[in-house]
Amino acid sequence: MGSDLFAVIMAGGRGTRFWPASTEEMPKQFLRLTGQRTMLQETADRFTGLCGRDRVMVVTGLGHRDTVLRQLPWIEEENLLLEPAGRNTAPCIGWAASVLRKRGFGSSLMAVVPSDHVIDSPEGFRETLRIAEGPAERGSLVTIGIPPDRPATGYGYLHTGDCSPGKVCSVLAFREKPDLETASEYIASGEYLWNAGMFIWKADVILDAISRHLPGLAAGLSAMGSGNPPEMDEYASLEAVSIDYGVMEKAGDVSAVPALFGWNDIGDWPSARMCGVGKGEVMCFDSGECTVWNDGRLTVLLGVSNISVVQSGGVTLVMSDDHAQELREVVARMEKEHPELT
Amino acid sequence: MGSDLFAVIMAGGRGTRFWPASTEEMPKQFLRLTGQRTMLQETADRFTGLCGRDRVMVVTGLGHRDTVLRQLPWIEEENLLLEPAGRNTAPCIGWAASVLRKRGFGSSLMAVVPSDHVIDSPEGFRETLRIAEGPAERGSLVTIGIPPDRPATGYGYLHTGDCSPGKVCSVLAFREKPDLETASEYIASGEYLWNAGMFIWKADVILDAISRHLPGLAAGLSAMGSGNPPEMDEYASLEAVSIDYGVMEKAGDVSAVPALFGWNDIGDWPSARMCGVGKGEVMCFDSGECTVWNDGRLTVLLGVSNISVVQSGGVTLVMSDDHAQELREVVARMEKEHPELT
Repeated sequence: MGSDLFAVIMAGGRGTRFWPASTEEMPKQFLRLTGQRTMLQETADRFTGLCGRDRVMVVTGLGHRDTVLRQLPWIEEENLLLEPAGRNTAPCIGWAASVLRKRGFGSSLMAVVPSDHVIDSPEGFRETLRIAEGPAERGSLVTIGIPPDRPATGYGYLHTGDCSPGKVCSVLAFREKPDLETASEYIASGEYLWNAGMFIWKADVILDAISRHLPGLAAGLSAMGSGNPPEMDEYASLEAVSIDYGVMEKAGDVSAVPALFGWNDIGDWPSARMCGVGKGEVMCFDSGECTVWNDGRLTVLLGVSNISVVQSGGVTLVMSDDHAQELREVVARMEKEHPELT
Repeated sequence: MGSDLFAVIMAGGRGTRFWPASTEEMPKQFLRLTGQRTMLQETADRFTGLCGRDRVMVVTGLGHRDTVLRQLPWIEEENLLLEPAGRNTAPCIGWAASVLRKRGFGSSLMAVVPSDHVIDSPEGFRETLRIAEGPAERGSLVTIGIPPDRPATGYGYLHTGDCSPGKVCSVLAFREKPDLETASEYIASGEYLWNAGMFIWKADVILDAISRHLPGLAAGLSAMGSGNPPEMDEYASLEAVSIDYGVMEKAGDVSAVPALFGWNDIGDWPSARMCGVGKGEVMCFDSGECTVWNDGRLTVLLGVSNISVVQSGGVTLVMSDDHAQELREVVARMEKEHPELT
């Protein structure tokens, strides 16, 4: 294995934009969206060769304990951190880092990754992390940046200056999700990477950064007992803030390593199409650009394009691509009117 | 009951354009498309008050015998005419008329109606037939004409001259399905009715007309034994022609009676929408003009319009309205590739 690395897989999302396939009980990261393995399983598999299975940690919601144990039966129970409530990424990462420190691994590296992204090359992922270990070992906060292929407005950007593959660069600035014009300027400049929410650093280093930039969270983490799950009161009172907004954007020494792999956060059904997401047999007639996902039945498309047809748990969703962003609101309404279907 | 009327309900269609709800085993006329009763049941119900149940005849495919008996358990077995093969309407009607003549009812009236049309007023239907009985008793071939409300190109037209509701008019000419320009001229003139394929006449009168205009069919009918179903060879050799093309367009004395009811042949999923066809719960968000039909599951539409979403028997069809005419070809292909689903 070589390095002294822990994997911290964040599996706490709700996957609202993948409803009705993704439900409160079985969110996106636990689904087989792209193949025979679930997204969580694929995320864990990707660490093979980077760290042993006894060093893979998963942070998830208390209610998903059994699902994780079913999908990753080899996981060590102490490495399965159960959140009594979702509090965004800073508390999640801070808690995982605290646990490592308490176990005597404060100076170990931790790679923090979401569990619901598609990465096309496991070997490219490993190669990228191996490069990123260098600056992380030297005390940097390191973020994996994705070389952008279009002026996407849905992601944050890292301003790095020229940063070619294989290099380690300093992050000059974090940029929030830009408008299209700004995004186009970023792309044209060649000086930006997408912020994909994948990080590597020493546990002690991120805890120090949290102490400096989120002292309230640091205090809350220090006060927490060693229970797993923690007491609801302890955890729910932690400041719900993202690690990007709460720490990274304020920290000085942040490095970026360009990803040596194709990446897609498959944020909604239309974008999932690019990753070949589709389940169930499909026959297309005069149709194109469609996502079909169901439990195996035949779907026949006749004269339709740019739509998603999703069937799961007694619900059929038919959605035009240009309304994918509104699915959250639909699910919010469903939660009131048909909670059993969300 | 008053009159000496028989109902002859034609229930032999295949309903291809209602696939996948309509299948070879369970075609459109046997489905609950518009309510709690099947289209066949609604068609039969409509004769209540016009003739006794012992005078309701149904002509259907041999394979649908049990379905008809299940849906109309009161039907007298001798009134259920079983076609060993579909041969269009002239043989079907000729056979029913022959059966009536053989039973000594040659001078009785027979009202011939399809089993898969929507009629909004049973009382209007009965009132129309009562008016039509007059000329039929006097030896006319009578057709029920639908006052058109738009220049439809999918129907044949009856040229009648001015023919207001409640009247009986002579049909001056039959017109095949017109192009839009011609249809618009018809509508503007006010001298045309739609030919809806509903007729009333004496059994002897239509048999005489068949003898005159389709002598080959008349000879075939005369040669048929009294078996029900007839021998396949006997029936399959009958000329497959419609009663409109084979007889009505050539006959001299044809009368028309304008319908005193709203009518829709619900020829495809989009047109079915107008009749409130829909099954299963639907939630619409930024959507409109959609037909949803399934076995009761919830369908959520987000940002889609002018489509039909039909789920039945392991198949989901999503079809844009402007492709409804192509469904026949899709089903033809399905019959080769997935015969179990057609």
